[in-house]
Amino acid sequence: MIIEIAENAGFCYGVMRAIDIANRALDKHNKLYSFGPIIHNPQVVDEYEKKGLKVVEDIDKVNGPVLIRSHGVAPEIYEKLEKKGVEIIDATCPFVKEAQRYAKQLVDEGYRVVIFGDKDHPEVKAHLGYTKYTASVINSENEAVKIKATRVGVVCQTTQSVERFGRVIEVLSKKIRELKVFNTICDATDKRQKAARELAERSDLMIVIGGKNSANTRKLYEICKETAKSAYYIETEKEIDSKWFNGVEKVGITAGASTPSYLIRRIYEFVKALK
Amino acid sequence: MIIEIAENAGFCYGVMRAIDIANRALDKHNKLYSFGPIIHNPQVVDEYEKKGLKVVEDIDKVNGPVLIRSHGVAPEIYEKLEKKGVEIIDATCPFVKEAQRYAKQLVDEGYRVVIFGDKDHPEVKAHLGYTKYTASVINSENEAVKIKATRVGVVCQTTQSVERFGRVIEVLSKKIRELKVFNTICDATDKRQKAARELAERSDLMIVIGGKNSANTRKLYEICKETAKSAYYIETEKEIDSKWFNGVEKVGITAGASTPSYLIRRIYEFVKALK
Repeated sequence: MIIEIAENAGFCYGVMRAIDIANRALDKHNKLYSFGPIIHNPQVVDEYEKKGLKVVEDIDKVNGPVLIRSHGVAPEIYEKLEKKGVEIIDATCPFVKEAQRYAKQLVDEGYRVVIFGDKDHPEVKAHLGYTKYTASVINSENEAVKIKATRVGVVCQTTQSVERFGRVIEVLSKKIRELKVFNTICDATDKRQKAARELAERSDLMIVIGGKNSANTRKLYEICKETAKSAYYIETEKEIDSKWFNGVEKVGITAGASTPSYLIRRIYEFVKALK
Repeated sequence: MIIEIAENAGFCYGVMRAIDIANRALDKHNKLYSFGPIIHNPQVVDEYEKKGLKVVEDIDKVNGPVLIRSHGVAPEIYEKLEKKGVEIIDATCPFVKEAQRYAKQLVDEGYRVVIFGDKDHPEVKAHLGYTKYTASVINSENEAVKIKATRVGVVCQTTQSVERFGRVIEVLSKKIRELKVFNTICDATDKRQKAARELAERSDLMIVIGGKNSANTRKLYEICKETAKSAYYIETEKEIDSKWFNGVEKVGITAGASTPSYLIRRIYEFVKALK
């Protein structure tokens, strides 16, 4: 059985940087708050909780140094934390920060702002804050049809699909007089998805590793399911069933943006030991 | 035989206005220059030549009051005419003027400018002038793929197809970081094309009237040819062959943006008299 790990599997730059910032902060502080889980991966969150990183969902529960995760937060969260006088350790991904700046810029320039993304994703919620909650969040061509304005400005959730984004912009461009578009989709997601598809094409079975609450991992899984003969979505090696590999010659492994490399390596070794 | 004229057939607002401006100018002046034919219709050009409107293709040949046709001209043409001290009667379509302003604005804002249109069309040549000849003219998705820049600004020839425009913008949006798009496509063209298609769907034969050098009439003809059982592209009733109508029950008539209504009416009466 041949086992291959996809290129660009696992942590993206923003997550790697956030983990690095968290590590350095935990060297300095015994206790550190994280506003929301540091990344969408329960294993990593558990590991960091043991190191002193306490996840809170309510800003009022923060009573000490606090880590802003890679997804970023709305501006009023910074204001609240500053009022509290707690130390802010900002691990917002620089690419997300850039999208936030564009969201604010578009509002300042008087555009009706549209955010292309998932309205429930924390990154999008933060973007919304930078538009003073004036933006519409859309994620499909059908929703794009409903946007009515003369001047529309668009910014994206960094982990969205560039193909669907293009189709949404096509719809808007045909009906909006002035359209200003910041394509803030990060190519890490695109590259990871492309590499996963390529590997899935030449694999009998694909293993997709990542938190079940990770949107980008779910997308990877969907791509692999469509392309390879079979695909499994797992968080750890405990979910692996050796029966999956009966008659399988080529196994591909990929992982979402919030999957640490040690976990990918561990699962690779686990599968390798099966046969 | 039922004969129906398509909605929105013939003159668009810009052409009607240009003809009106020419008429008023010819009341004042015995001789008037027109820089290029007033509209893409030989019959109208001939008629106006008799009234004193002299078409010149070379600006150096202008020695008196001059009409700028609805397509507009590049800014250096105004400068040359001003230097000559001749009266300028500007019949540039206001929608074209708006596109010219946007083209200039995009250059001033530092965008790499892309004009969506036909590089040989006089309107596009004028737009190019407003970008100081820095813009690229593209007309297809293949050409869009080749555009390389971080900040791209787009403006259109007013008579282009909105469907193809949308597909070109889709391509650009997927690869350009900042994309500012002015959709300056005039809905007169779109409405005329839609009405022609609808009429062609319920007609056995379509007659498309317009100058053979009119790009928008050619497009109308292509739509009708695809949709109706048969379609003919004519300039005047002289080209009509009564054999076309053998076995035909429903005839549709449409006309390009530069076809005067009296010509549409004349052809309607001519066909009606055939049976």
